[in-house]
Amino acid sequence: MPAPITVGVVGAGRIGKMHAENIKNFFPSVRVKTVVEANLTPEISAWGAGLGFATVTGDPAVLFGDPEIDAVLICSSTDTHADLVIDAARAGKHIFCEKPVDLTLDKVVAALAAVRKAGVKLQVGFNRRFDHNFARARQHVAAGAIGTPHLVKIASRDPAPPPVSYIAVSGGIFLDMMIHDFDMARFQAGSEVVEVYASGAVLVDEAIGKAGDVDTAVVTLRFANGAIGVIDNSRKAVYGYDQRLEVFGSKGSVVAENDLPNTVKVLTETEVTTDKPLYFFLERYRDSYLNELGAFFSAVAGEAEVPVTGEDGLRDLVAAIQTRQKERSICPSPSRS
Amino acid sequence: MPAPITVGVVGAGRIGKMHAENIKNFFPSVRVKTVVEANLTPEISAWGAGLGFATVTGDPAVLFGDPEIDAVLICSSTDTHADLVIDAARAGKHIFCEKPVDLTLDKVVAALAAVRKAGVKLQVGFNRRFDHNFARARQHVAAGAIGTPHLVKIASRDPAPPPVSYIAVSGGIFLDMMIHDFDMARFQAGSEVVEVYASGAVLVDEAIGKAGDVDTAVVTLRFANGAIGVIDNSRKAVYGYDQRLEVFGSKGSVVAENDLPNTVKVLTETEVTTDKPLYFFLERYRDSYLNELGAFFSAVAGEAEVPVTGEDGLRDLVAAIQTRQKERSICPSPSRS
Amino acid sequence: MPAPITVGVVGAGRIGKMHAENIKNFFPSVRVKTVVEANLTPEISAWGAGLGFATVTGDPAVLFGDPEIDAVLICSSTDTHADLVIDAARAGKHIFCEKPVDLTLDKVVAALAAVRKAGVKLQVGFNRRFDHNFARARQHVAAGAIGTPHLVKIASRDPAPPPVSYIAVSGGIFLDMMIHDFDMARFQAGSEVVEVYASGAVLVDEAIGKAGDVDTAVVTLRFANGAIGVIDNSRKAVYGYDQRLEVFGSKGSVVAENDLPNTVKVLTETEVTTDKPLYFFLERYRDSYLNELGAFFSAVAGEAEVPVTGEDGLRDLVAAIQTRQKERSICPSPSRS
Amino acid sequence: MPAPITVGVVGAGRIGKMHAENIKNFFPSVRVKTVVEANLTPEISAWGAGLGFATVTGDPAVLFGDPEIDAVLICSSTDTHADLVIDAARAGKHIFCEKPVDLTLDKVVAALAAVRKAGVKLQVGFNRRFDHNFARARQHVAAGAIGTPHLVKIASRDPAPPPVSYIAVSGGIFLDMMIHDFDMARFQAGSEVVEVYASGAVLVDEAIGKAGDVDTAVVTLRFANGAIGVIDNSRKAVYGYDQRLEVFGSKGSVVAENDLPNTVKVLTETEVTTDKPLYFFLERYRDSYLNELGAFFSAVAGEAEVPVTGEDGLRDLVAAIQTRQKERSICPSPSRS
Repeated sequence: MPAPITVGVVGAGRIGKMHAENIKNFFPSVRVKTVVEANLTPEISAWGAGLGFATVTGDPAVLFGDPEIDAVLICSSTDTHADLVIDAARAGKHIFCEKPVDLTLDKVVAALAAVRKAGVKLQVGFNRRFDHNFARARQHVAAGAIGTPHLVKIASRDPAPPPVSYIAVSGGIFLDMMIHDFDMARFQAGSEVVEVYASGAVLVDEAIGKAGDVDTAVVTLRFANGAIGVIDNSRKAVYGYDQRLEVFGSKGSVVAENDLPNTVKVLTETEVTTDKPLYFFLERYRDSYLNELGAFFSAVAGEAEVPVTGEDGLRDLVAAIQTRQKERSICPSPSRS
Repeated sequence: MPAPITVGVVGAGRIGKMHAENIKNFFPSVRVKTVVEANLTPEISAWGAGLGFATVTGDPAVLFGDPEIDAVLICSSTDTHADLVIDAARAGKHIFCEKPVDLTLDKVVAALAAVRKAGVKLQVGFNRRFDHNFARARQHVAAGAIGTPHLVKIASRDPAPPPVSYIAVSGGIFLDMMIHDFDMARFQAGSEVVEVYASGAVLVDEAIGKAGDVDTAVVTLRFANGAIGVIDNSRKAVYGYDQRLEVFGSKGSVVAENDLPNTVKVLTETEVTTDKPLYFFLERYRDSYLNELGAFFSAVAGEAEVPVTGEDGLRDLVAAIQTRQKERSICPSPSRS
Repeated sequence: MPAPITVGVVGAGRIGKMHAENIKNFFPSVRVKTVVEANLTPEISAWGAGLGFATVTGDPAVLFGDPEIDAVLICSSTDTHADLVIDAARAGKHIFCEKPVDLTLDKVVAALAAVRKAGVKLQVGFNRRFDHNFARARQHVAAGAIGTPHLVKIASRDPAPPPVSYIAVSGGIFLDMMIHDFDMARFQAGSEVVEVYASGAVLVDEAIGKAGDVDTAVVTLRFANGAIGVIDNSRKAVYGYDQRLEVFGSKGSVVAENDLPNTVKVLTETEVTTDKPLYFFLERYRDSYLNELGAFFSAVAGEAEVPVTGEDGLRDLVAAIQTRQKERSICPSPSRS
Repeated sequence: MPAPITVGVVGAGRIGKMHAENIKNFFPSVRVKTVVEANLTPEISAWGAGLGFATVTGDPAVLFGDPEIDAVLICSSTDTHADLVIDAARAGKHIFCEKPVDLTLDKVVAALAAVRKAGVKLQVGFNRRFDHNFARARQHVAAGAIGTPHLVKIASRDPAPPPVSYIAVSGGIFLDMMIHDFDMARFQAGSEVVEVYASGAVLVDEAIGKAGDVDTAVVTLRFANGAIGVIDNSRKAVYGYDQRLEVFGSKGSVVAENDLPNTVKVLTETEVTTDKPLYFFLERYRDSYLNELGAFFSAVAGEAEVPVTGEDGLRDLVAAIQTRQKERSICPSPSRS
């Protein structure tokens, strides 16, 4: 039984609420004392009160100035992450920060410097490392089951594109979507990216191309250990959220397939059918959100190291930015408008 | 958003605690006010207090006499179920009762009569009907996807036998284990059992045979609609909890396979391996326990009918008792001591 | 390279032709010299000449009197098998006989006696033992991979019923269809059947019931080694030929699923689909027909024992006849006309 | 029943023998009259005589000068293909030529010109298009089941590398191995390659690197229709021959998995295991070799068009050569010696 931990949550959007509720329901030794939300509404206040959170406020200073708070979860909009990390670090709070820390390298570097100076712990929210499938795959790879990795292949496709307005501020497919896959590729390969090549196209929606982004991409990576990686992304897989990977090596291969909502198959005169994959990330990665919090709280309690560091987040961002540059300068898609 | 419901839970063993915690975590409009536990310990009191339950007591009268309590969950030992159902019915409480209501037909009949007289709702805890796989299979069957059912096949095997001391009081494999499968077979067939035949053997542990039970059994059922059912049970499947079924009909077949803990497969020089099925019922049927409570609370709120009635429980018990008699009188296992 | 073998084939129906062509194409050291067909037509003569078979005749004496012929394949209609076995044995020919040797025990016993007296080899055509799936399953069981067998489960369903006229002479579902499964059950269990129980129904076609047979059946077996078996048969699985089995034991379980024509799956907005199982036995068991011939020729060449003996055929027939008696006397199906 | 066709086979190595035997066993209306083998041995002559082929000779002129011969199968070493195609075309024979027609573009262009001038049919031996899995996948794509293709992904890995001496003359991994995958990618995409990018590494065997080749490669393709392709090759997949693909599009995805030798799975206390994929191409693509011959003979009989043209072979070669150039000039592998 770990020592009790008191936390504050900044940002009461979908992810912030989910984390707060998960803590309430599944981490009895962790108390959510304070929730900070810039756009405070009566609904959010009622939500927090209903869950028994002591304070729901629009003012982050309440949180950072509270000596009872051990750690803070930063779940606000991306452009506020870096400043909040710096504030939290200066206040001596341990930090769980949703990914990415920022879209610009300078701000991430500054935030990491503040964390290092303050000596607090920082975990970045790459939850997929804690997924039951991908964590199990990594376990096999790390245990040597497939020998030395030669290829890391990731398929990562969303069920439907986000609004074009989102793409305009998100940094585009490489920074808002494939950054998860860069992190996963590094995690599975156990090695750093040393070279990238990108091939993108606008095949899903012309409007995405007009916004300066691609909606379909294949990226090749070269790792320091000599392995080659390949990631494909699509903004629209009509059959649901598609999240698979393979690590192929000198002694074999490990493959992680999609989760299905059930194991039922129906055999009829014409064919055999099953249900399609789980629809989207909140279903698919449900357990991973719990597991990443568990890992963070263990680190806060001094029982383990933080498993996804600020340095990881920085390296993922570098890979994403380099890939975006490659795609734009070298490979203009013939189908883009 | 349904109207708020206040419940009491009788029995704070493994299942009672799970239900109470599930209500706390997943049913915000349902309040657990009172927990009754005959063998009250400081640990149980602390557990209840920690979860914010107002009263934890050894006296069921506190619960039945409380006008705020709308419904009661009966999760105590089997031999107390029937009397508690009667008490709860007389007190005008809706009832969720863990299966079986009793091991003797007379007591079940008496309990159902009390329920009917009081006009309260009674749901019996055959949670597997709410499992994501089996519920989906039934959906297909009910929708006519496989035409008229001809065969219902159920494999149901535990990872390890219970203590022999448990078998001595449980009613044996047909009443403590296969009763779930009788209920599932009736549910999937959409028809009542009109004939049973049993073939049992002691193959797992001689001590089970000495206790007067079998540990391995195949039972054939005939349904009123003409379909044939077959259930196999084993007390010991070393590879984990084995829960599968098939409904075969005039237009096709629907098959529900085991859940695996992950989708990972490892290919090596010698073979391809995956992890084995989930270990036991708390993992395997995790979602079904939530779903059955949700269905009960909907019924209490007047939004739906109770999906598993006392009549269902009675019919399952009749099938189990008849099967036990058949196995014992007709087919003495040559391997039994 | 085995010594050259010269064979004759009796019966040029579907199975006889298939065996003759398989020998021609895949067994270069075996020569089909003579084909005997009672209902000789110009087409059959042309077929044989086209394949280079020296003699195509209506007279079996040509074959049995030919000292060049080492072995004979009996592929004629079932009612001629026993007499042909006796004739072949007396002529000193090794015998491969399609199953069953006969539908009556007396004639089978007489045929086996003739074989024993002549000292020739007899293999009965239970080809499924040589199927890539079922042979592999048996290998695992025989190697102890699942410990001591406790349960043997077989699903065996045809894509469509035969003509009712066939059922009238075939001996019915237990003798023309399930006899294959009795053989498979004995093969997998590695033990003999000591008790049977049958539950049959007429669910596919009323005309089958009027012909005195059932079209759907579940049979429970008890083996000498204590294991329990269960076989289900249906005359009509609309999704194709359904041939699966499981052997469950003290250390695990081995499962053989259906073959599919390809590994392709299609994921769409509504579901995931694959093609259904192979249509019928000539496709499904294609390799098994080659393998059983190979085993027979090895036995003829003195390199191995015959793997499916006349005794096997006799025991399968006994199980089938007893099951038919049980089904008829004990369990009149309520739905039968 | 097609008109009888008489063919000659040039080259009696592994592939030439296989084709000749397949014709003998499975195409009754096609006669192999002549086999030409430059390195004629008594064994080869005996093999041909045993199969009833009229002439086995070392002199191709015998074949090309024979007016009875309708078509020729060129199965000799790659460096002889182009000249033999030209000779056959001039002699007015239809041509089935094993891939590739040549390793140099000039010679292929010259051979295709000769074919065009002579007005004979030419089919190149890209047998994988006729594989039961890949042909079925293409059927779905062509039927619009997945809408417009966006991504074509191919995994293609050999069980073990060829001798280094072979690599020195084969043209390397892109020309001897990935050329099959370029053809498959074009076939599935239904579009031509307009851009390639290659990333290769020496991870399997240093000696391959010393011979100037890579043993592991990921190649990205851009198609004229806007789709993106990605192919991965490895010279060594220890778990067997790995041949899978996916075509992802606007309305879904089609996935073709590996063939397994059987459907058996074994569940034990520690895991679930199946056998690994079929070992190599003669097993895996057994049916495709028959199907491609069937298609060629249909074309020769005038019943259909040749499904894999010389133009196809030329385009595949162009893609392979461009890829090899890209890999060598742009991406020096850090791990290569």
